[in-house]
Amino acid sequence: MSKTYYFPLAKLHQYIIDYFVHWGVSASDANLTADVLLAADQRGVDSHGMIRLSSYYGSRLRKGLIDPACPMTILRESPTTLSVDAGNGLGHPVSVKTMQQVITKAELSGLAMATVRNSNHFGIAGYYAMMALPADMIGICFTNSAPLVAPTHGRQAVLGTNPIAVAVPAGSSRPFVLDMATSIVPIGRINVYQKEGKSIPSGWGVDSNGQITQDPAAVRDGGALLPLGGSELMRGYKGYGLSLMVDIFSGVLAGAAFSSHVGNATQDRVCDVGHFFAAVKIEAFRELTEFKKDMDELLDLMRHSPKASGEERIYIHGEKEFENAERAFAEGVPLSEATVKTLIAGGQTDGVPFDLKPTRVIEERTEN
Amino acid sequence: MSKTYYFPLAKLHQYIIDYFVHWGVSASDANLTADVLLAADQRGVDSHGMIRLSSYYGSRLRKGLIDPACPMTILRESPTTLSVDAGNGLGHPVSVKTMQQVITKAELSGLAMATVRNSNHFGIAGYYAMMALPADMIGICFTNSAPLVAPTHGRQAVLGTNPIAVAVPAGSSRPFVLDMATSIVPIGRINVYQKEGKSIPSGWGVDSNGQITQDPAAVRDGGALLPLGGSELMRGYKGYGLSLMVDIFSGVLAGAAFSSHVGNATQDRVCDVGHFFAAVKIEAFRELTEFKKDMDELLDLMRHSPKASGEERIYIHGEKEFENAERAFAEGVPLSEATVKTLIAGGQTDGVPFDLKPTRVIEERTEN
Repeated sequence: MSKTYYFPLAKLHQYIIDYFVHWGVSASDANLTADVLLAADQRGVDSHGMIRLSSYYGSRLRKGLIDPACPMTILRESPTTLSVDAGNGLGHPVSVKTMQQVITKAELSGLAMATVRNSNHFGIAGYYAMMALPADMIGICFTNSAPLVAPTHGRQAVLGTNPIAVAVPAGSSRPFVLDMATSIVPIGRINVYQKEGKSIPSGWGVDSNGQITQDPAAVRDGGALLPLGGSELMRGYKGYGLSLMVDIFSGVLAGAAFSSHVGNATQDRVCDVGHFFAAVKIEAFRELTEFKKDMDELLDLMRHSPKASGEERIYIHGEKEFENAERAFAEGVPLSEATVKTLIAGGQTDGVPFDLKPTRVIEERTEN
Repeated sequence: MSKTYYFPLAKLHQYIIDYFVHWGVSASDANLTADVLLAADQRGVDSHGMIRLSSYYGSRLRKGLIDPACPMTILRESPTTLSVDAGNGLGHPVSVKTMQQVITKAELSGLAMATVRNSNHFGIAGYYAMMALPADMIGICFTNSAPLVAPTHGRQAVLGTNPIAVAVPAGSSRPFVLDMATSIVPIGRINVYQKEGKSIPSGWGVDSNGQITQDPAAVRDGGALLPLGGSELMRGYKGYGLSLMVDIFSGVLAGAAFSSHVGNATQDRVCDVGHFFAAVKIEAFRELTEFKKDMDELLDLMRHSPKASGEERIYIHGEKEFENAERAFAEGVPLSEATVKTLIAGGQTDGVPFDLKPTRVIEERTEN
């Protein structure tokens, strides 16, 4: 059992702005960052939301390891492409501004892509892919991240959990929003099992010898996560390939760090994270209304296809998150007890006290 | 134990041309098709090569279910985009010509994408992605295919094995070539286990109730393959999402059939397969030599990272296939006994006798 606290959206948003402004970030960049961070908590992806405020962003701003000025510069530009240097600023504002430019370019050119180097953790990749939806475009976003994943036949973490996000508009249906790490699970999931003294499912990770282990401690102590698929027999090399692909687009193509060169939050050095963004204008290929009609039909073919015995619903990617966001809009944004404790402690340390009052507190079972 | 027959590349190539010309395909379209089909056998992806000559392509040309004229028409076009109708011709020539145009457009515009509707099975997706490599571009190719895969919580095949191919040039290293079905295994792998009376690994497929089964017959009789990842616990919904993404780009965006509407080889109706192609010019983002240097380093970081105990080599995607192709170039193209039998039987039925003499025959163990 754990407690969930509900807070009004606008109050949390203002708190995040105040928090970053305190560290010297401009009000407008702080505002963009607040949008992205809160979207994670609203959508139920709390690992990528406010819980990182002090532990990741604040701790690095405090040490001068993130530049609060977020001095974004353009390295190369064409009507379809953009190559950006984030100047070691926060990952969120540079990513919002870059994706905005990608959408503007795609409006004129049909397609556009951008890379960002010298950046930091940018929250949920899905946020940037979804920015394309109101423009009736398909949005794509990748980012690399600090190493946690071993390649097939390896035993050392040399790849990040390198997520892939793709957002596609539909007609009467909610959009399709795929936002997935290319590892099976994030490291946070291993931590939860360890904390609860449980074995992890076989295939999620390997020990320091590269053997699949069910001991969460062995994954964390010199072991590694496995890419989507898991073992070779289950074709884990496909997940390994997708992770490499993400590192090529976000790391190598961007001229950012890649593989084990990407820094993590605990290291006293610049992270040099790389991102990749793309937008595709549907009308460049097909009449928009026909596209949306077919999207509705495709998604309905999934939803209404026969269920496995014992299952009641086939989900479309993003559906649960849209439902979470709608509930958060109506009922307030849910923050876990751990998040609230982190915010209170971090706010005290950092001199931006978190003294918001929850409108509601409920006790609920945690899901694994 | 099974036999492998080796044939000279040029002779097989001419046979394929003769075969398609016999059915009324132009010599130039037959030539393009021969290039793609032979590339599969050279690269060791024999399931997508000459074994399909009569069983898939010939059988449908004979019934008038594929138009030998391959009457490709352009529906929409811009400096960055192309939307093509394949006129129910063979999938290979339209795909080669479309990818050539994508590369030409990307040379001028930095990026280009194309969709193809009303097409047929086009062989290996990796072939088209790799066409971008000599132009120092990243190549991407997706295609949808007839339903074989169930979504997470489902029990009916409503998605194809919908492959993703991405080819990226490197410097001194061979290119990165990811060419993967979004299911764990192809249906052919299930057939092999069934023929050998073996159980399949848990997670590869479900029975007609949607329950994971180790009985290959249960997957084939009203069951379905599972997407990459497998069960929900192993995050099979990510593979399901990737499969949907491929169907969106190749089916919905192209205006082709999608999901269960895509026809298969045994049905007496048009297949209406859809394809998607893209090319990204590296110099639009970064100096080419720097990109290639970093690609070499990234791939070396994988290859030289510590091995799991008992493993000797960490592979890069495409590496085994390049080695196969080099061997095939030196030693002749290896065709399995099953392929040769199919070619002899099909050639006889179709009136294009396959009477080539192998230069070498060897017996070897089959791999699973």
